[in-house]
Amino acid sequence: MKADKAVTPIDGTVTSPRGYRASGIHCGLKPSQPDLALVVSDLPATAAGTFTTNRMRSAPVILSESRLASGRAQGVLVNSGNSNACTGERGAVDARAMAAAAAAALSIPEDLVVVASTGVIGRPLPVERITAGIPALVAALGSDGMAAARAIMTTDAFPKTAAVQVDLGDGVVMIGGIAKGAGMIHPNMATMIAILTTDAPVEAPALRAALRNAVGRSFNCISVDGDTSTSDSVFLLANGASGVARVDEGGPRHEAFLDGLTEVAGRLARLIVKDGEGTTRVVEVVVRGATSDADARLAAGAVMTSPLVKTAFHGAELNWGRISAALGRSGAEVAPDRLAIAMGDVWVVRGGVGIPEAYPSAGVVVKAPEVRVTIDLGLGQGTFTGWTCDLSETYVKINSGYLS
Amino acid sequence: MKADKAVTPIDGTVTSPRGYRASGIHCGLKPSQPDLALVVSDLPATAAGTFTTNRMRSAPVILSESRLASGRAQGVLVNSGNSNACTGERGAVDARAMAAAAAAALSIPEDLVVVASTGVIGRPLPVERITAGIPALVAALGSDGMAAARAIMTTDAFPKTAAVQVDLGDGVVMIGGIAKGAGMIHPNMATMIAILTTDAPVEAPALRAALRNAVGRSFNCISVDGDTSTSDSVFLLANGASGVARVDEGGPRHEAFLDGLTEVAGRLARLIVKDGEGTTRVVEVVVRGATSDADARLAAGAVMTSPLVKTAFHGAELNWGRISAALGRSGAEVAPDRLAIAMGDVWVVRGGVGIPEAYPSAGVVVKAPEVRVTIDLGLGQGTFTGWTCDLSETYVKINSGYLS
Repeated sequence: MKADKAVTPIDGTVTSPRGYRASGIHCGLKPSQPDLALVVSDLPATAAGTFTTNRMRSAPVILSESRLASGRAQGVLVNSGNSNACTGERGAVDARAMAAAAAAALSIPEDLVVVASTGVIGRPLPVERITAGIPALVAALGSDGMAAARAIMTTDAFPKTAAVQVDLGDGVVMIGGIAKGAGMIHPNMATMIAILTTDAPVEAPALRAALRNAVGRSFNCISVDGDTSTSDSVFLLANGASGVARVDEGGPRHEAFLDGLTEVAGRLARLIVKDGEGTTRVVEVVVRGATSDADARLAAGAVMTSPLVKTAFHGAELNWGRISAALGRSGAEVAPDRLAIAMGDVWVVRGGVGIPEAYPSAGVVVKAPEVRVTIDLGLGQGTFTGWTCDLSETYVKINSGYLS
Repeated sequence: MKADKAVTPIDGTVTSPRGYRASGIHCGLKPSQPDLALVVSDLPATAAGTFTTNRMRSAPVILSESRLASGRAQGVLVNSGNSNACTGERGAVDARAMAAAAAAALSIPEDLVVVASTGVIGRPLPVERITAGIPALVAALGSDGMAAARAIMTTDAFPKTAAVQVDLGDGVVMIGGIAKGAGMIHPNMATMIAILTTDAPVEAPALRAALRNAVGRSFNCISVDGDTSTSDSVFLLANGASGVARVDEGGPRHEAFLDGLTEVAGRLARLIVKDGEGTTRVVEVVVRGATSDADARLAAGAVMTSPLVKTAFHGAELNWGRISAALGRSGAEVAPDRLAIAMGDVWVVRGGVGIPEAYPSAGVVVKAPEVRVTIDLGLGQGTFTGWTCDLSETYVKINSGYLS
């Protein structure tokens, strides 16, 4: 049995796996929208996390990474509206205080609560509004994950959820997730905030490896604007509530679990690109024929972040010369006379030069809301697939503060 | 005598030094604007060039670099409207053909003509329009460099010229230049097209070293959009027509010449940023306290190209957190608790945290058309100064083809 047949997408969230509850409320960090979310496992769970590679890491990132060294967690507390980043020693105190308040209200050990904060950088966190909101947040815990998905949003236009059920052969486990992110998105470790849950029983080392693998093929393959946040965090909890036998590394059961996890992470990642600030068009960038997978990623990264490529896609312009120029400066090994480029299934460049006969049909392809660009470097076996979006005036408006 | 006192900026162009003529005409590559420029020295000159590091180098770049290996040139022919890049073997033939036509009309050896092409990438060059225009171009040669400055423009809003006179103690030499560039501008070798001329007598090796030095402190310190072009070329001709003694490497005469050359290149570079596509604000980014000059450049580069930093400057928002986040992902060595940031002379961050009392006056500083940001990493002696611009809706409009 091929493992990926075991994975079935379902309509769900972090509460789709058994033994999890979630809630989201407004505590006063934002004017009126929900701004505080909690996801809790009924039992202590094994846990793993991946965090931003940005050197200016926020206080919650530092605290949560340190706590996850134990491989265990039970609650994930997230606020939006303030990232508690670049806030010095006070930021560290505030991060611990919000975790402590949640632990007390849940009657669980403080070190089993991990935290994340997202929003403006460099302003002290009004932590007293969070601690004051915790009792209501805990009282609201229930089986619906949508309130939590909404409460972690910042400039997001819609809540992001995904879930799958995975048939392990001897039983079924569920994997669910919520995520936020629309700006400051770039493939370099988990570039946003996501909470993933599963009721599969997985030991901490295997869980960490699975998360690293899934993030490498999902959240680390997307870009909205090339800016890596100070707060990016992905959490994965596994509480074993499904009752199936332990999922160890190796073998078809593990492979099925990995496929399910990658499916949930990939769906959430693509939702982030779709909701990229000002996005009107999602562009899948497939690079093949590179001298290595690393080189393919380098080549794709330059294309995915080029303002000229992204504005051309915004205008639905067939400007493959800009893609070629981005490849040329990417640092990847390229040979101008071996390059081939396709829009959808229409090849517009072969041997490094344009095919004018193909331009009319390719011009139709680039007008669609989702466009796949295939770049064949013609040099080797390296491949990479990533997702980016166009660059629109709306992105500029949002980030110039016109809409704030 | 301090060498830089020897440099006096004047109103001038490539024809300010003695023994140069220039012209610009419309030959039909663009609908109606000037699109063909020529700069000629009366006598064969020593010559140097710096060219794009992009791997997808245009045919003219490849041809001109090869010809400048001789250290000599007499004419520089530039067309706008088509970059002759990604055009395969035909592009190489076309580049040689346009140079040959100019050489014939000027009655000079073909290998003393270098060429550059700028404009859309990936379309065959209508070279017959260029060769047909050459006689009129040569007939128009004269002492006014402005027509040439206009004919090399693409999306530029204004022609870019600069000139200085340099007092070498035993005589005066002139250095002049014209440049184009508004988009696809990023500090990585000469990221645009510029022609620099001087009547100083300088041997080819010394001229190459001087150009490399000046470009490193001018054109390589600017960014408009992080995209490095396939066509970037800087040419420097030295014909010795001033009659002064040879300027050799070392000593105060050489230092004065270098200062003058850097002044002309720096002025042209800053004009390119000022004319960046959609620019409403020029931002000087000064990084100091880095562990090395290379690290300072890395840190500045991330800030200068961050869409979030650039949109914040567009909105005149005091969003230092975005600068901090860009520094954190730059790859440069940074210590969050040592960071200090100033807008103009107002320090808004010290020890990595904000100084709210300073925000009102800093908020005034960021509204000016030119803003200097000083970033002190507090770690060492490394410094870098660069120039970037804001990111506006107009940049998106221009590059989405709305205005084309």
